Amino acid sequence: MAALSLFLDVPLTREVNWLLDAYQEDPSPDKVYLDHRDCQTEMGKAWVCPTVRQTLLQIASDPTLDHEYLPVLGFPEFTRAATELALGRESRAVIENRAGGVHTVGGTGAVRIGAEFLRHWYNTSSPNVGFTEIQPYHYWDTVRLAVAIEGFLEVLESAPDCSIVVLHAPEETGLTPKQWEEVARVMGRKRLFPFFDIPAQGLASGDLDRDAWALRHFVAQGFELFCAQSFSKTFGLYDERVGNLIVVARDNETLVRIRSQLQKQVMGMWATPASLGARVITTVLNNPALLNKCLRMLAEKIMLIREKLKEKLRILGTPGFWDHLTAQSGTRSFTGLLSSQVAFLEKHKHIYLLGSGQVSVCSINSHNLDYVAQSINEAVTMCGFQY
Amino acid sequence: MAALSLFLDVPLTREVNWLLDAYQEDPSPDKVYLDHRDCQTEMGKAWVCPTVRQTLLQIASDPTLDHEYLPVLGFPEFTRAATELALGRESRAVIENRAGGVHTVGGTGAVRIGAEFLRHWYNTSSPNVGFTEIQPYHYWDTVRLAVAIEGFLEVLESAPDCSIVVLHAPEETGLTPKQWEEVARVMGRKRLFPFFDIPAQGLASGDLDRDAWALRHFVAQGFELFCAQSFSKTFGLYDERVGNLIVVARDNETLVRIRSQLQKQVMGMWATPASLGARVITTVLNNPALLNKCLRMLAEKIMLIREKLKEKLRILGTPGFWDHLTAQSGTRSFTGLLSSQVAFLEKHKHIYLLGSGQVSVCSINSHNLDYVAQSINEAVTMCGFQY
Repeated sequence: MAALSLFLDVPLTREVNWLLDAYQEDPSPDKVYLDHRDCQTEMGKAWVCPTVRQTLLQIASDPTLDHEYLPVLGFPEFTRAATELALGRESRAVIENRAGGVHTVGGTGAVRIGAEFLRHWYNTSSPNVGFTEIQPYHYWDTVRLAVAIEGFLEVLESAPDCSIVVLHAPEETGLTPKQWEEVARVMGRKRLFPFFDIPAQGLASGDLDRDAWALRHFVAQGFELFCAQSFSKTFGLYDERVGNLIVVARDNETLVRIRSQLQKQVMGMWATPASLGARVITTVLNNPALLNKCLRMLAEKIMLIREKLKEKLRILGTPGFWDHLTAQSGTRSFTGLLSSQVAFLEKHKHIYLLGSGQVSVCSINSHNLDYVAQSINEAVTMCGFQY
Repeated sequence: MAALSLFLDVPLTREVNWLLDAYQEDPSPDKVYLDHRDCQTEMGKAWVCPTVRQTLLQIASDPTLDHEYLPVLGFPEFTRAATELALGRESRAVIENRAGGVHTVGGTGAVRIGAEFLRHWYNTSSPNVGFTEIQPYHYWDTVRLAVAIEGFLEVLESAPDCSIVVLHAPEETGLTPKQWEEVARVMGRKRLFPFFDIPAQGLASGDLDRDAWALRHFVAQGFELFCAQSFSKTFGLYDERVGNLIVVARDNETLVRIRSQLQKQVMGMWATPASLGARVITTVLNNPALLNKCLRMLAEKIMLIREKLKEKLRILGTPGFWDHLTAQSGTRSFTGLLSSQVAFLEKHKHIYLLGSGQVSVCSINSHNLDYVAQSINEAVTMCGFQY
């Protein structure tokens, strides 16, 4: 055999999380990490909905459960329940049988399958749109600490016709229904294709229907669209990778053709998804009592943390306005802290958060709340604030 | 909104299984399907290793199990155990820390990730190999009902240097160690890259080490190679999609670089695999007693079916030689039936198998054995046989 490797030219690549690395290397006993991907318990473990634990145990104990392959497009009861959760049982698209799901390996799998489909089949006539250029956009004004609707609409107006627009976590953006209506009007006029990504329906407002308002408005307006859906955060079942790609098409015949191509893609990627997680989620989705119990627990926990932090800062007389902490909702929050204040927190307080001042709300718990609030107060007092 | 769908041009595509469709549409009460993907019980359900059921239940009942995301490359204990199962604990590649796994969504995920990596990074210097043309090859002589080693070696000799050769289910091909040595010699001289695909280690001979002989020989010869590994059939856990992509590299530093690129691919495909199935498999793999119990049950079942069918045909005095039924091993078998005989079985006996005469051994059970044997006897007697 040759003495040299066939893969000499393969470069080392690592997706490094500098913030997490810095936090982990920090020896301080006071250190706090405010960018956890998961919603955590007081003990700093991933929170799991108790109902989910019980349901998993029930399903695992069922002796009649064979472990046969699922269909390529996944567990049909799951995709139906998940699609109806997002669009609503009374959605015209559901009633007219022109909305359907593909059970995927988490939200990432849904985005990947949808993107590959669009790359092959979307708007093939005009080569200068779609994937030829990818543009980021902002919807949040980090100075005014409010939705930057004008800027967002400008981006849409100036985008090439028929562009694909990814609408991530619409329920957490803070856009009002009126503002979403405006967005839909512009997107309709410009024939922009909406690719929604809904990672945690219900966790923003605690109300499943309210969190799905934007998506349902687009469907009601007659858009054809994709929506990637994940159940990892909602139920704390991060490790079973339960996702769904919702396809809303003009009519059933189009939906069938699109799903047939998606099926072909899935066969070449993972053949068929894992089933246990989806069985658990389906059981919970089909039992409104269980579902609401699960959701309310976490949604209230998130809202309470926001309230407490705001109240602490008020009591401390921290300069600046903090209403946005509770005006916003969902698992992530813009604190409004300046990068200089973020740097101060990291350097002097061993508190780690993104330079944008964004935090994962569930990283704050009763053990670190006081310390975090006092530190923010110091940071703002020392470094000045933006008003 | 436009009245026309954006997806008018998307064609309908369906991966149709004509054989299964024909079987399902056949109203006959005698009908038998001999091409099941899974190993079935006497009752025609997917067989699940009882140990696997118990282990899953134990893991699901563990209150300390959080459902946090697995690392991108999966459950480390699983990839280690799975890789050592295939290569052997004493493998030089393992000891020298230049072999490692990537926990994938089933065997399909392992093949996909490996193929995408090779497309990007393998032998980029010469554009006329790799994925530019894909050539099927045969290793089985359907007339002599024996391994067609000469033809197989010719294919390898005539392949472009540095081609990638997929070696599917080496344990089921029936090649002897001497023949594998010859294959390895030719592939080494031609610098052909081995991509093994081992769907059911242990089910061919009932012996894990013997089934891995070919793979281990290539590793011992110093090849760099990939090996896709699946645990669906071995444990009857089809629906949890537990696969592993084994990478054997020249040295640890090369392995690290390759895995870093694979990690990047996984992040864009499913982000991280599901965990429960892998936790179950790992528990079984780390307990030799459980593992061997699981394997022996199924391997013996398969060998017994082969013996019984051969014996039935002998008693019926069926023309032809049937020793290949037991000379071969594993879940699939060439019966040696001619396409005319296969057609006879389908038309007159409602027995459905591939035109090549290949069957899934586990599709035969005590309920259909006599009928299948008698029907084969008739088919061979009526349509003549090939000697």
